[in-house]
Amino acid sequence: MDDLALGRRLMERLEALARFSDDPDVLTRLYLSPSHKRAADALAGWMREAGMAVHMDALGTLVGRYDGGDADAPVLLIGSHIDTVRNAGKYDGALGVLAALTAIETLARAGERLPYAIQMVAFGDEEGVRFPSTLRGSRALAGAIDPASLEERDSGGVTVRELLVAFGCDPARITDAPMKRGSALGFVEVHIEQGPVLERADQPVGIVTAINGARRLKVVVDGKAGHAGTVPMAMRRDSLAAAAEMVLAVERLAKATADVVATVGVIAAHPGAVNVIPGQTTFTVDVRSPDDSRRDAVCDRIAEAVEGIAARRGLAAHFETTHRAPATACDPGLISALSEAVSRTGHAPLLLHSGAGHDAMAMAAQCPVAMLFVRCAGGVSHHPAEAISVKDADAAMRVLLDFLRTYKP
Amino acid sequence: MDDLALGRRLMERLEALARFSDDPDVLTRLYLSPSHKRAADALAGWMREAGMAVHMDALGTLVGRYDGGDADAPVLLIGSHIDTVRNAGKYDGALGVLAALTAIETLARAGERLPYAIQMVAFGDEEGVRFPSTLRGSRALAGAIDPASLEERDSGGVTVRELLVAFGCDPARITDAPMKRGSALGFVEVHIEQGPVLERADQPVGIVTAINGARRLKVVVDGKAGHAGTVPMAMRRDSLAAAAEMVLAVERLAKATADVVATVGVIAAHPGAVNVIPGQTTFTVDVRSPDDSRRDAVCDRIAEAVEGIAARRGLAAHFETTHRAPATACDPGLISALSEAVSRTGHAPLLLHSGAGHDAMAMAAQCPVAMLFVRCAGGVSHHPAEAISVKDADAAMRVLLDFLRTYKP
Repeated sequence: MDDLALGRRLMERLEALARFSDDPDVLTRLYLSPSHKRAADALAGWMREAGMAVHMDALGTLVGRYDGGDADAPVLLIGSHIDTVRNAGKYDGALGVLAALTAIETLARAGERLPYAIQMVAFGDEEGVRFPSTLRGSRALAGAIDPASLEERDSGGVTVRELLVAFGCDPARITDAPMKRGSALGFVEVHIEQGPVLERADQPVGIVTAINGARRLKVVVDGKAGHAGTVPMAMRRDSLAAAAEMVLAVERLAKATADVVATVGVIAAHPGAVNVIPGQTTFTVDVRSPDDSRRDAVCDRIAEAVEGIAARRGLAAHFETTHRAPATACDPGLISALSEAVSRTGHAPLLLHSGAGHDAMAMAAQCPVAMLFVRCAGGVSHHPAEAISVKDADAAMRVLLDFLRTYKP
Repeated sequence: MDDLALGRRLMERLEALARFSDDPDVLTRLYLSPSHKRAADALAGWMREAGMAVHMDALGTLVGRYDGGDADAPVLLIGSHIDTVRNAGKYDGALGVLAALTAIETLARAGERLPYAIQMVAFGDEEGVRFPSTLRGSRALAGAIDPASLEERDSGGVTVRELLVAFGCDPARITDAPMKRGSALGFVEVHIEQGPVLERADQPVGIVTAINGARRLKVVVDGKAGHAGTVPMAMRRDSLAAAAEMVLAVERLAKATADVVATVGVIAAHPGAVNVIPGQTTFTVDVRSPDDSRRDAVCDRIAEAVEGIAARRGLAAHFETTHRAPATACDPGLISALSEAVSRTGHAPLLLHSGAGHDAMAMAAQCPVAMLFVRCAGGVSHHPAEAISVKDADAAMRVLLDFLRTYKP
């Protein structure tokens, strides 16, 4: 047998899933988009072929069950998400989903039953690109979702609820939490690192100890629109010039605090004409840290800076938190079990923390969580250049299978 | 006689003309629209009643002649435009046209003949909303129109030529310039200020010294996209943070130079997701000044600042000029004559320049030009809230009549 057969199998499926895109030129698969639907349909087929009983829940999450040796066996959850950012890479999310599929397929082909059932999940709302809040799939599965989040609208004005109905889901069942809290053994998510640590350490995989907390802010700056030719500079209340100062304050305040990163990813000036002074400018801020109090202290300083800049310029600024997730500690038992599996497959059990948010954060409300990170080229993610090697894919599969075969509930 | 009789007469006519709209709810009177036709027909009637010989030229401009004391007397042009933006105010353009009408009516009723003939004009294509290029009426009258501009199409695919025929004009006569270049004494345009200077100075009217030249730039900043959680602050090449510095440089450089305004009206960060460091950011810059060399010097300093900021941050920036129009100086003799008229009517002769473009820019190719600005509430224009007072309308009429009565060819 080919030494890298598992890695190749996983890479083939990553290529196949990457073909489902809403953009013919690049990979863009937003939550509840047509390509999300087509990807989910194809994946459901692969899951059934691999030996799972499959259904889709109220939030569009695909759930597949691979029974344990005993009908009453406890359940271990594994998986990740299949939505992507715009102009995405092929591995973020998809790697964890298809690693789970490949692991279960391998067990099923060998007729192996474990002392626990595996429930594979493919969430659809992890990237947070389409709607103000995110992680609906994992929050619902964890029994920790706010039904009001169904009323959020995308930039086209369509609600999550409307899209879910069109997707074939029943949003009324959003709070029918499929598992009793604490009933699952845990949730294990394989994911690309999205950072440079494993590459620098020359290791194919690493075990996550904690996931950074994240807070997202929306800032609205209200100035006064005016004719670009007729309003003297000294009499302007230009919302975009004020926002530019605020963007630089966000950068400066994050730089000044260890273990905190902050990003302005979206900005819009209204009315948005070359010859009109922007009357209103809106922008987002994403602030992350493994230390929640440090993160919130930076958010407080950003709020102060925003208010100070607006006041000095005679503008009004409105500041709101649109998303908040605390830092999440991974489970020490699962960390140990994964570390042993890494060692047994011939690698050093490197521990690191996650700068990015993951479905595992939401799942932590339901059960212990753990993550296995896989080295990615240059630490690049959210970009078509995102890449992993067949060898590393194979190493990740071997670790996951070793873990599943040796894990004792 | 009512002290404000002239102002009231003018305001009544402004209300009457504002009733011609293509939209029953707001004022929208685009070039060559049905409401432009109805407005021109009504105005032609008022002009004839006021004592003028009236015709419509090849571009839909209404031209009315009020003879001087002598059949060979030279000609002075006065007027403005009757087209509007969408959802417009009642004064932009209409004020100058109806002030001309009211002045000639006043002279005719008193049987006054001047040592020159007055040719009143009501242009129809000043706002530039319907077609890619604009100022066709004044360019044609100035003998400076490109016949190819007849082939431009509106968003519905209809050409200027087709619309002119339907309007009752003969576009074949577009280059029959109605006046020999330099044969007119000048063109005097009354217009709302569209800015806050007169309001701040507590003056009803002001005399324009120059109409700003404009240059439009497009700046593209190329950094590196990355995950908002995993790329340390010190390793980022954030195109939006760089653009924010550039926006502030634009503001600072314009503020530091007298008589220059610069505006960033449009900005876009790509890919434009809350959790992605923007890899590319684009923005526009609109720079205006009555002094072309000063304007270009500011553009050069903006380019230097953009390059310096990009270099310091390890990014690439691309800078291009997308539009350039020279400044138009008003005629010193006409400026003096208007200033004296302002003084004689009891006001301070405040000199200012025009940030917005006007028909007078095109007319400057034919003859000396001048503009009398009238205070408008809050400096607001291109909006239903556009407003002037009866008192200011009256002051403008008194200045215009005093100027006409005392002006020596």
